[in-house]
Amino acid sequence: MACPTRRTKIRTVTVHLGDRSYHVRIGAGVLSKLGDMAGEVTDGRLAVVVADGTVADLYGRAATDSLTSAGFRAELLTFPAGERNKNLATFSSLMDELLSLEPPIDRSALIVALGGGVTGDIAGFVAATALRGLPWLQCPTTLLADVDASVGGKTAVDHPAGKNLIGAFYQPGGVLIDVEALRTLPVEELRGGLAECVKHGVIRDASLLDAIDSNVEPIFACDPEVMTDLVARNVAIKAAVVAEDEREAGARAHLNFGHTVGHGIEAASGFGTLSHGQAVSLGMVAESRVAVERGIFDRTDAARVERLLERLGLPVQLTGLDADEVWRIMQHDKKALGGRVRMVLPTGPGTVDLYDDVKYDEVAAALASLG
Amino acid sequence: MACPTRRTKIRTVTVHLGDRSYHVRIGAGVLSKLGDMAGEVTDGRLAVVVADGTVADLYGRAATDSLTSAGFRAELLTFPAGERNKNLATFSSLMDELLSLEPPIDRSALIVALGGGVTGDIAGFVAATALRGLPWLQCPTTLLADVDASVGGKTAVDHPAGKNLIGAFYQPGGVLIDVEALRTLPVEELRGGLAECVKHGVIRDASLLDAIDSNVEPIFACDPEVMTDLVARNVAIKAAVVAEDEREAGARAHLNFGHTVGHGIEAASGFGTLSHGQAVSLGMVAESRVAVERGIFDRTDAARVERLLERLGLPVQLTGLDADEVWRIMQHDKKALGGRVRMVLPTGPGTVDLYDDVKYDEVAAALASLG
Repeated sequence: MACPTRRTKIRTVTVHLGDRSYHVRIGAGVLSKLGDMAGEVTDGRLAVVVADGTVADLYGRAATDSLTSAGFRAELLTFPAGERNKNLATFSSLMDELLSLEPPIDRSALIVALGGGVTGDIAGFVAATALRGLPWLQCPTTLLADVDASVGGKTAVDHPAGKNLIGAFYQPGGVLIDVEALRTLPVEELRGGLAECVKHGVIRDASLLDAIDSNVEPIFACDPEVMTDLVARNVAIKAAVVAEDEREAGARAHLNFGHTVGHGIEAASGFGTLSHGQAVSLGMVAESRVAVERGIFDRTDAARVERLLERLGLPVQLTGLDADEVWRIMQHDKKALGGRVRMVLPTGPGTVDLYDDVKYDEVAAALASLG
Repeated sequence: MACPTRRTKIRTVTVHLGDRSYHVRIGAGVLSKLGDMAGEVTDGRLAVVVADGTVADLYGRAATDSLTSAGFRAELLTFPAGERNKNLATFSSLMDELLSLEPPIDRSALIVALGGGVTGDIAGFVAATALRGLPWLQCPTTLLADVDASVGGKTAVDHPAGKNLIGAFYQPGGVLIDVEALRTLPVEELRGGLAECVKHGVIRDASLLDAIDSNVEPIFACDPEVMTDLVARNVAIKAAVVAEDEREAGARAHLNFGHTVGHGIEAASGFGTLSHGQAVSLGMVAESRVAVERGIFDRTDAARVERLLERLGLPVQLTGLDADEVWRIMQHDKKALGGRVRMVLPTGPGTVDLYDDVKYDEVAAALASLG
């Protein structure tokens, strides 16, 4: 069924945010439409593609060719790949390059973030702050960025004190997701995206869990039709949540399911030991078990989620966790308020609620049960 | 009449920006109300005052005392005074200090920008980007910051390629203007603020020009009643313009009167040769003369503005300007679009309009007439 040159139809999901609304276009081979989309979001003639070195080698030329064909002057700025480079130093270098272009950029200059979450975050932060805000497009190239970072307008760089501590909410003018790019993605990164897809199913749509369960093989084969559908469904869920709550005051907190304990596990294990997706998988298992022990979530629903995570190659067990350390990190999460831990717990198939009365003992018991 | 300890009444001007609306409170001695205002904009208990060393020595204690009295834990972060320090390096140091506070800050932490335009710009940019946005208050201490930077939500740092090239639009939760702080301001800085007051009169309210003209002595004596009125009138004008047009698409461009040629003169003379206020004064004279030569502005109205600027000690003459260089800089202004110069020209007492057909010859003639 997989045939790299076949074009599936293009799916469009609209993110409704008043005068900051934008479209997400998803399909196989759609990177060739980048120039057209650029023309929809700026009257200018300059487009600056930002990518890490790896993605620039793979897709930089396709992006600039499409922009050039549409009449843009296209520039490509690169930075060294890796989350460790998502910092103010890289931000500053990219700014230096952007602000040294001749003729100097004006506010019609378009930024195109081409790559995974790191690129979207840092290029988006450049777009948010250069001349106090330039139009920008996101072209995510990883499943995680497709289904998560592509919607919501979160931009940021890391700081030694923590991840994403410096940034802005700044919506793109549009998002273009070429699912063909997933073919060059390491399987571990595909799994990281799938963890977020499972999360979306748990918080909003239990039938998405069935759809993933029925398509594990074509998903790992990156079948264009299946991936287009999968990404479109997930983008639609995230778009609905973000539209409800653009700046994280309420419903958007639901997207943190699995992430409160997950971040704690990720940091307590030492960043880099577990991938983000692996930590989120373990976080979802732990948080589901907290909900089960509270009697608000059915044990069979929790077991079903765990089985699906296992089928996808995501971890559901981990030994040697220091519960005190995980709890301490959770209390210092930037989404915590005054040291009070806030946790999203499943309450049924496709539904969750936010709890701010979760106790240390409950989390410690759930963590112990992972061993 | 001037009596430092007498309290004038507090004037309030509201900046109407939908759910980002806020109040500007103006009066003599109102810095003592900082703690109360802080309580109106955050539910948190941490307030971080950002000031340069000079202002921290003068008013840092008064600010933190007021915050502490209102139940806040108050921290004071300082940076070296001067526009040359309004850069990413200072921003990065302030971020390091802010993000190293223990216990770590959360999104309820309040930033207080205490000082002139540089402090408002850089502390505002810290507020805009720390944890993707913290609540913040502005306490301007210069007349220029009182009547200009305090309204509009512009935050930024400079870049070697130009001023204010990295920043964000980010509205404060409130502004507190203590006109007593003007007493410690060098007279040259007072004049810089007065240049903007004259600008407001030209673009929106000719009677403001009369009010300034009738109060030159009490203004330079920093009479609290007169300064409270002067600041309130100017804040109201700027607030009305910004409310019409938050992100500089239309009416807000009127605030650039005097600044298009002014920035060109400032840069062509070498930054630091002329103060910003002096450059804007010369820019207003030159732009008014362009309008007079076009036959859209009355020569006697233009002469009246020039006489007022002279009475205030602001320059209306300058020799040795390189018109080619000024024009080149104007074409590269970040508000220019595609190299096209856009200029605000007076069309009557208290009215202006935006023109994008101004030619080199007109500007060169106006610059020559300054000599």
